[in-house]
Amino acid sequence: MIEHFSFAVEDADGRARAGRFGMPHGVVETPAFLAVGTLATVKALDPEDLRELGAQMILANAYHLHLRPGDELIRDLGGLHLFMGWDGPILTDSGGFQVFSLATLRTVAEDGVEFRSHVDGSLHQFTPESVMQIERNLGADVIMQFDHVIPGQSDEAAARDACERSVRWLQRCVAELNRLRAGGPPPNTTLPSRAHLPTTEFPRPTPTYPQSLFPIIQGGIYDHLRRDAARAIRDLDDWPGFGIGGLSVGESKPDMYRILESLDGELPRDRPRYLMGVGFPEDLVEGVRRGVDLFDCVAPTRMGRNGAAFSRDGRLNIKRAEYRTDPRPLDEECDCAACRRFSRAYIRHLFTADEILGLRLLSLHNVHFLVRLMRGARAAIRAGTLDAWSHEWLARYHSRPVTTE
Amino acid sequence: MIEHFSFAVEDADGRARAGRFGMPHGVVETPAFLAVGTLATVKALDPEDLRELGAQMILANAYHLHLRPGDELIRDLGGLHLFMGWDGPILTDSGGFQVFSLATLRTVAEDGVEFRSHVDGSLHQFTPESVMQIERNLGADVIMQFDHVIPGQSDEAAARDACERSVRWLQRCVAELNRLRAGGPPPNTTLPSRAHLPTTEFPRPTPTYPQSLFPIIQGGIYDHLRRDAARAIRDLDDWPGFGIGGLSVGESKPDMYRILESLDGELPRDRPRYLMGVGFPEDLVEGVRRGVDLFDCVAPTRMGRNGAAFSRDGRLNIKRAEYRTDPRPLDEECDCAACRRFSRAYIRHLFTADEILGLRLLSLHNVHFLVRLMRGARAAIRAGTLDAWSHEWLARYHSRPVTTE
Repeated sequence: MIEHFSFAVEDADGRARAGRFGMPHGVVETPAFLAVGTLATVKALDPEDLRELGAQMILANAYHLHLRPGDELIRDLGGLHLFMGWDGPILTDSGGFQVFSLATLRTVAEDGVEFRSHVDGSLHQFTPESVMQIERNLGADVIMQFDHVIPGQSDEAAARDACERSVRWLQRCVAELNRLRAGGPPPNTTLPSRAHLPTTEFPRPTPTYPQSLFPIIQGGIYDHLRRDAARAIRDLDDWPGFGIGGLSVGESKPDMYRILESLDGELPRDRPRYLMGVGFPEDLVEGVRRGVDLFDCVAPTRMGRNGAAFSRDGRLNIKRAEYRTDPRPLDEECDCAACRRFSRAYIRHLFTADEILGLRLLSLHNVHFLVRLMRGARAAIRAGTLDAWSHEWLARYHSRPVTTE
Repeated sequence: MIEHFSFAVEDADGRARAGRFGMPHGVVETPAFLAVGTLATVKALDPEDLRELGAQMILANAYHLHLRPGDELIRDLGGLHLFMGWDGPILTDSGGFQVFSLATLRTVAEDGVEFRSHVDGSLHQFTPESVMQIERNLGADVIMQFDHVIPGQSDEAAARDACERSVRWLQRCVAELNRLRAGGPPPNTTLPSRAHLPTTEFPRPTPTYPQSLFPIIQGGIYDHLRRDAARAIRDLDDWPGFGIGGLSVGESKPDMYRILESLDGELPRDRPRYLMGVGFPEDLVEGVRRGVDLFDCVAPTRMGRNGAAFSRDGRLNIKRAEYRTDPRPLDEECDCAACRRFSRAYIRHLFTADEILGLRLLSLHNVHFLVRLMRGARAAIRAGTLDAWSHEWLARYHSRPVTTE
């Protein structure tokens, strides 16, 4: 694989795999959940929280960071790792999804997409080339191709068109990335001077600036389009990993699970597979069973900010009156920094009084929950007991009526 | 002094003192700044942040906690320490200031104050007796008397009236507290069950429930009223410490400093003095020079949430455009968890993008700044160099125009 990147499958159990994905900033033990730090911060959390709860890798977003604060600014400050204080692996999404979901007044052409910023209405153009420049400036370990994303219920013609365009754009991404690589690493000329401080915890930029590009498989809910895309992409290059995009965007769960199953045979088993934007607990378990290694989703932090907490027995909404006097932790089997120290009654009080600590505690608990869930799945794969483990896990998680959306 | 409370003056330098204030939940080295956790949380911070930055004691508020979530609820959950996850010393303010500043439709009588909640308009009455019951339920180490607070520019007749009423209310507080103490500690019957967790960090309620009552000296900006109040209070009992209230409420700085100087001779030197609600850096230095041992103020966290940071060279507003590309930490001489890891450019980005981490980082930095300032003052007192230290400190702090309010 590309220098500084490696993937070793340590054990398999059915379609599921336990692996080690090595990158310039560290190793991720898979299956793994990536915490989402869209704007170079995982909302309401500190990088130290993420390290403490065992998060291994963070996702950031090229679209958002290009608009605010600007990818060139981040480059000039030494890259994303240094900027956001996270020295572990980072993946940047290309912004394909955001251009097609957040931005307004889009004009899609073969060359790229013209759109207006959702922040200030300013006009921008993303092409495969410009997105590679942005992701190069940001400096994540893994960078995603620029792709054409369509709604989950699109018809076959639209899905085919977007899917085939994404493959053509992938080839332009590769050409542009090779051109950029030939120019050496981006300049890091204005690094902060911290020599006066006796700390070793500040991340240092890597001198070699290696990055690896993941292609994204599109094709909507059409098995043959997905398989065709996987084969076409697979035959283009020796990829360090594969993104599976355009799922969890409105299609049914059986459609998503079937697509994963039909892709399993088309993708090399010695490369990590990343199911983009999928991250509810039940989806993670079902995805692992179908051979997925990496996941990301805003659900744990967004739900946390809205007062919803994952627990082994399903979700709970901490704002409900029943928790007013409840001395128990959010989840009695959880050992996160929120559950070790605080009662449901206290966290409910924080939400009732609009206190910021409440947002942090629930976000922390929810990210911890998914990170720990993936550790549990990994242990079950290594023990050869994933089938029993996942059925038991899902049965208990669904055993209680969900009290919140 | 009352059992479980002690105050030892280790060194004096002019009027200033370096001391150790011992309480059931720990020792505070004075002079010290108390972080304000009005609603049982220091806004935007975690108790773990406060421990890490060296905060020794937290203030919470009887008025706010009585309204939300209710002092009886906190009592039933094992008291404030357990509720908010802080096992160090806590002081509760009585709510006198809030009743007279936040609540509406007040009716003040000799018996107490009737008012409407600023949260939901519900009708409440605070009397010296009811406030002692509330503070007993909360269970802080130090509890403040219920006092009559008036605006900073009140005339002498109003100041005398409020001041004398506060002394009468103090006597009723003592009688009620003695009655409550005779009944033993409040019930703690529903403590959280955490036996399944391998943690030792969770605070345990103290079995003896000792609390000590601080009187509050009022009297507006009138030296003789202040001195009369100090003498009257001093002669009532052997107090474990003295609160100085009704300052930093609109009067001029020279008025405040003069009052502190005139009180110095009237208060016993072997008891801590707590200047309530005062906490800008320059006020802390001037207060220490005039014999104050304890301070509290919402300024560091409120300013932090508004984007203002303390630095050795004065305040800076992180939202200003000049910091957009600034790779330096907030304060190049600071070793707080924000300055060790993040640039001004990053923190400005967090504020520009409305990211919660920005609120936490500036709040953390500002509280750390005041805690460290008081450690510096303490070291100077012990070295006998407070005069030179404080002049140098103030000259540099004021050397640059303030860029924000």
